[in-house]
Amino acid sequence: MSGNTLGKLFCVTNFGESHGPAIGAVVDGCPPGLPLDAADIQMELDRRRPGTSRHVTQRQEADQVEILSGVYEGHTTGTPISLLIRNTDQRSKDYGNIVQTFRPGHADYAYWKKYGRRDPRGGGRSSARLTAPTVAAGAIAKKWLASEHGMRIRGYMSQLGPIRIPFRSWEEVGGNPFFAADASVVPQLEDFMDQLRRDGDSIGARIEVVAEGVPAGWGEPVYDRLDADIAHAMMGLNAVKGVSVGAGFDCITQRGSEHGDELTPEGFTTNHAGGVLGGISSGQPITVSLAIKATSSIRVERRSITTDGDPTMVQTFGRHDPCVGIRATPIAEALLAIVLMDHALRQRGQCGQ
Amino acid sequence: MSGNTLGKLFCVTNFGESHGPAIGAVVDGCPPGLPLDAADIQMELDRRRPGTSRHVTQRQEADQVEILSGVYEGHTTGTPISLLIRNTDQRSKDYGNIVQTFRPGHADYAYWKKYGRRDPRGGGRSSARLTAPTVAAGAIAKKWLASEHGMRIRGYMSQLGPIRIPFRSWEEVGGNPFFAADASVVPQLEDFMDQLRRDGDSIGARIEVVAEGVPAGWGEPVYDRLDADIAHAMMGLNAVKGVSVGAGFDCITQRGSEHGDELTPEGFTTNHAGGVLGGISSGQPITVSLAIKATSSIRVERRSITTDGDPTMVQTFGRHDPCVGIRATPIAEALLAIVLMDHALRQRGQCGQ
Amino acid sequence: MSGNTLGKLFCVTNFGESHGPAIGAVVDGCPPGLPLDAADIQMELDRRRPGTSRHVTQRQEADQVEILSGVYEGHTTGTPISLLIRNTDQRSKDYGNIVQTFRPGHADYAYWKKYGRRDPRGGGRSSARLTAPTVAAGAIAKKWLASEHGMRIRGYMSQLGPIRIPFRSWEEVGGNPFFAADASVVPQLEDFMDQLRRDGDSIGARIEVVAEGVPAGWGEPVYDRLDADIAHAMMGLNAVKGVSVGAGFDCITQRGSEHGDELTPEGFTTNHAGGVLGGISSGQPITVSLAIKATSSIRVERRSITTDGDPTMVQTFGRHDPCVGIRATPIAEALLAIVLMDHALRQRGQCGQ
Amino acid sequence: MSGNTLGKLFCVTNFGESHGPAIGAVVDGCPPGLPLDAADIQMELDRRRPGTSRHVTQRQEADQVEILSGVYEGHTTGTPISLLIRNTDQRSKDYGNIVQTFRPGHADYAYWKKYGRRDPRGGGRSSARLTAPTVAAGAIAKKWLASEHGMRIRGYMSQLGPIRIPFRSWEEVGGNPFFAADASVVPQLEDFMDQLRRDGDSIGARIEVVAEGVPAGWGEPVYDRLDADIAHAMMGLNAVKGVSVGAGFDCITQRGSEHGDELTPEGFTTNHAGGVLGGISSGQPITVSLAIKATSSIRVERRSITTDGDPTMVQTFGRHDPCVGIRATPIAEALLAIVLMDHALRQRGQCGQ
Repeated sequence: MSGNTLGKLFCVTNFGESHGPAIGAVVDGCPPGLPLDAADIQMELDRRRPGTSRHVTQRQEADQVEILSGVYEGHTTGTPISLLIRNTDQRSKDYGNIVQTFRPGHADYAYWKKYGRRDPRGGGRSSARLTAPTVAAGAIAKKWLASEHGMRIRGYMSQLGPIRIPFRSWEEVGGNPFFAADASVVPQLEDFMDQLRRDGDSIGARIEVVAEGVPAGWGEPVYDRLDADIAHAMMGLNAVKGVSVGAGFDCITQRGSEHGDELTPEGFTTNHAGGVLGGISSGQPITVSLAIKATSSIRVERRSITTDGDPTMVQTFGRHDPCVGIRATPIAEALLAIVLMDHALRQRGQCGQ
Repeated sequence: MSGNTLGKLFCVTNFGESHGPAIGAVVDGCPPGLPLDAADIQMELDRRRPGTSRHVTQRQEADQVEILSGVYEGHTTGTPISLLIRNTDQRSKDYGNIVQTFRPGHADYAYWKKYGRRDPRGGGRSSARLTAPTVAAGAIAKKWLASEHGMRIRGYMSQLGPIRIPFRSWEEVGGNPFFAADASVVPQLEDFMDQLRRDGDSIGARIEVVAEGVPAGWGEPVYDRLDADIAHAMMGLNAVKGVSVGAGFDCITQRGSEHGDELTPEGFTTNHAGGVLGGISSGQPITVSLAIKATSSIRVERRSITTDGDPTMVQTFGRHDPCVGIRATPIAEALLAIVLMDHALRQRGQCGQ
Repeated sequence: MSGNTLGKLFCVTNFGESHGPAIGAVVDGCPPGLPLDAADIQMELDRRRPGTSRHVTQRQEADQVEILSGVYEGHTTGTPISLLIRNTDQRSKDYGNIVQTFRPGHADYAYWKKYGRRDPRGGGRSSARLTAPTVAAGAIAKKWLASEHGMRIRGYMSQLGPIRIPFRSWEEVGGNPFFAADASVVPQLEDFMDQLRRDGDSIGARIEVVAEGVPAGWGEPVYDRLDADIAHAMMGLNAVKGVSVGAGFDCITQRGSEHGDELTPEGFTTNHAGGVLGGISSGQPITVSLAIKATSSIRVERRSITTDGDPTMVQTFGRHDPCVGIRATPIAEALLAIVLMDHALRQRGQCGQ
Repeated sequence: MSGNTLGKLFCVTNFGESHGPAIGAVVDGCPPGLPLDAADIQMELDRRRPGTSRHVTQRQEADQVEILSGVYEGHTTGTPISLLIRNTDQRSKDYGNIVQTFRPGHADYAYWKKYGRRDPRGGGRSSARLTAPTVAAGAIAKKWLASEHGMRIRGYMSQLGPIRIPFRSWEEVGGNPFFAADASVVPQLEDFMDQLRRDGDSIGARIEVVAEGVPAGWGEPVYDRLDADIAHAMMGLNAVKGVSVGAGFDCITQRGSEHGDELTPEGFTTNHAGGVLGGISSGQPITVSLAIKATSSIRVERRSITTDGDPTMVQTFGRHDPCVGIRATPIAEALLAIVLMDHALRQRGQCGQ
């Protein structure tokens, strides 16, 4: 199986380039009978859509999804669901200056080394635009997990550059463009972003994702552990440099007598495990953190080389997210949903439940 | 493909339980013609073997590997290489007190929920013992990567609980049981561990792994990115709660003008990317960090429930590692080697180089 | 990986239903640098297109392919190639009478049992129309195999119902709608088909496919043998009930001294093996035979049951192929090309050649 | 996944060479709770064991299976089941004369071309001996399918060289070394085999396998059809040159009005489909035929070349099956069981039944 497919039973195959005719995904293995129409998917796509605030790329993409197959009379049929999103805003002149050189920190160098050629328009396949099909596929997984298991998968931004954003309530997340769970921090975030934009620079962020209602027993003992597959999915997202579950890197300084979550007849007392024990879900909420790096497309001038190996200076103009982390929350939710749905089907396959 | 196989072209299928007759792995997809004998593998197994210092489990396992297939006249034949390690020290009475209850933080609860039954002897399949077949398989990958690409994969412990261990030199790593790259810290580590053992408690750790000599161009653009597969492999290791590449979680506060590694005709000037750009290797060293939690098998008494759901208190006696991180370095090296070898073959398959 | 993907390194994921908005395929794993445009693919699609003679379905489908991704400036980039074919002729009223019942020999009964629902329009996903994406993907494989290995993959019909069609020359295959390699038989075939159409019945056929220029060494020793993967691909084609390689079922009566192809310094003297020895290509032409059953959509009245289990009689009107075998030759060629390309990449991955 | 694994959810990874230390299989994905001990597996192994009559190879192999993992207190645990069979009778001197040359019709030529080297002892991995692990794994699948679905999988030889063997009754199959379902033909078979042995030659055979009790709904619409996966498994067996389902190659001359099995409230009236409609099981018995070629290891002298390309003559002495088809029946049953079990789990995973 080649590299652009996620999942073993619930399989998402992603295709497309930023400035080609279209992007999309084929979702194979979805159970039949799930009520589904384009609006279910569009709702999630709109959450990650560019151009929704001044803090994200101003590229205008409707990101209108079309369902090409696998749905009949408003229900999934069990056959592959093909999802198509046409690219409409393809101002490739914006990218002319980067064809013969490489942006520091950008994938274009690695693509060129791998394939010997690359589609430079808008970053081609390395564009964050390719997360849209992931979000579309994740919307299906989210809907099935909700209807079948009452599961709820939500995320928020917990840090933007140096600014930590406390968790106050899920209700506040949807009311601001940062997916911040504490609206009172938003003015501070806006000021930071405005200054960053003036500087022509970009910044990293931290995202938290939580799945509530995950039954105990999903995952595998060795290699394809549930948390391993989550880590794979999350680290497979553009710009992610770190993934952790539960206590994450804080576990390093925890003693066993602190880290291990005690059990009582009423349930676990803490959740340092982040809902995964020995690679298998424990029934507690699954909690995941992502570290997202700053985008490499910045106006700040930097040293680079040309495709001929000569030294040059690079600046990137055009419409880029100064913080790709801002739109990452719905994507991380989608990825978590896809992994959980895959393991739901795998568990049902092997263990019949 | 079920869950106990790692890799797509270089495939390691792991089997066994801690106290069953044997553990092992089948390595499928290894190129033919690689000089290989049991000693090549034994050398790596001996690095993770228990009982080598007073700071790790005192279980006595020779971990003697037998090559059952795939090698003829001292060379790999291209057919599956089956590796067998007999379990010899199976004092299962040590584990009697945990059959009817669950250790806080331990996989036994999740296994019981998943399968409806479990092999309780020594943690069964959730035992850290199952990392031995991974190390054995990784030894093959390491040898091939070294001979084919001059690659070198090494790791060290950079933190044990609260004690940070600076990197001084690779030479010092092999000279102490902690895989510390600065021998001067060892007395402090020993004191810490001695006290921990007296407390009957356990502790977390942080491990760094570095692969030098990785050619640019390995990986995939979306989903099966090289760093995604590394994260999958590492998070699939027992007790790992966090994985990061390059700058890792520090990227959150980095600006794009700081994070993006500049290119010069002489090469990159920094390596915040950790050797991976857009999911594809850049030719720089690949640097990975792991957060490893404290083991759940401790003498400190903790609250838990019985399999009937009644409250109880749990203590674990027997021979356990008070810091599983101590023996994790060779395992993390092996996992990195397996992932890199898999992508080496995938790259050669698709791009012919 | 779910069930609608063919191949491990060169992966074709097929989607769509006969009367949905579109059908298509995503081809992942194609090497970069292959010159490719829509015309290369259209040429093969036109060979299997309906409506080209009175002996096939009169459905009018342009089967116009659009390349959505993976090609830039006339060359493959190494990223997934998405192929889209819009359905244009969707007279679903033709199929109204079969929604509440099942055609004897048709997939609709099995789909209904599997999924609990089905898209009845034109057979939904069980329609032979879904072979178009296979042909499109196969065109890419054919082109790469030709340019990289000088390989030539061709097929012909060797039997239509009771009429055996001798092989005279490859030149004659393209000149008649039956893919017969002996044009002198064509009038007899036309008479047979005209009578069959008057009878409202359908008929089976036998197809031969040959790949010349396959290097020795492709395949695997056990399970994923080259001939096993060929058999999988061919039996995965609608209406195929039998697959054989080389001597096929004639091998039953052959003695070892007759079947085993002798080797001389000039090459093999015969090709009873059909180009595959022990699951691995021998360097001889690969020869495959398919038995294709008569279509189940016929005007002859037959006994069946309703979805409620009551007895009923069924006749199928509408535009159906009276012999699906007639259009099967380009599909079988495409399938053989896909399997060979997959093994070409696998061999290069493992053995570096 | 590399090439020596069969199945996607119920995965059998096969390893070993004829004259290496051991052969075996790892079975991953087996549901927990199945009662299983070595005797369940041994029973099937004994059915294919060499040396049970004068008509098969006289090699003396106990083929004693050891379960290394995945079973605890007499039940499967859900973790990988590792099965080990030590090679005991390794008279490799028997094979000395074939190291520098190739047997016409034998895999050794293709292996040498693929890998550049080979283990010549007893055919190495191409030996029919490697079907033993398949039979062992199949025993587990058979047991689960029987207990979970009341399924029964049985086979028989229907033709040995020119002698057709009618089906009289399942009871007669176990009473003769040929797996003939009509004992009255046995003397004729014995005479034929005795003469063949005197001639130093070998012969082909035809095997039928039938699975009764398969629920409707197993399989996939495109590519991974149930019959496609059956064809893959069967053609992946040594010496098989043809596979068919139901009417098989006879479907070529059948009209649609004859081939399509009519449905009545009491069930289907015929079974030309062989239990598979559109790639999905129909609830009827699944019927499969295999054509098995004569072995290439014969005493009859034949032309060949040396590894240097020079002409030579080859004769093979040693202990070989003059008709590998004789022992193929239990192997074909095992393969059918493995494929059906895999699809049982896949269906349960996707469709929850």
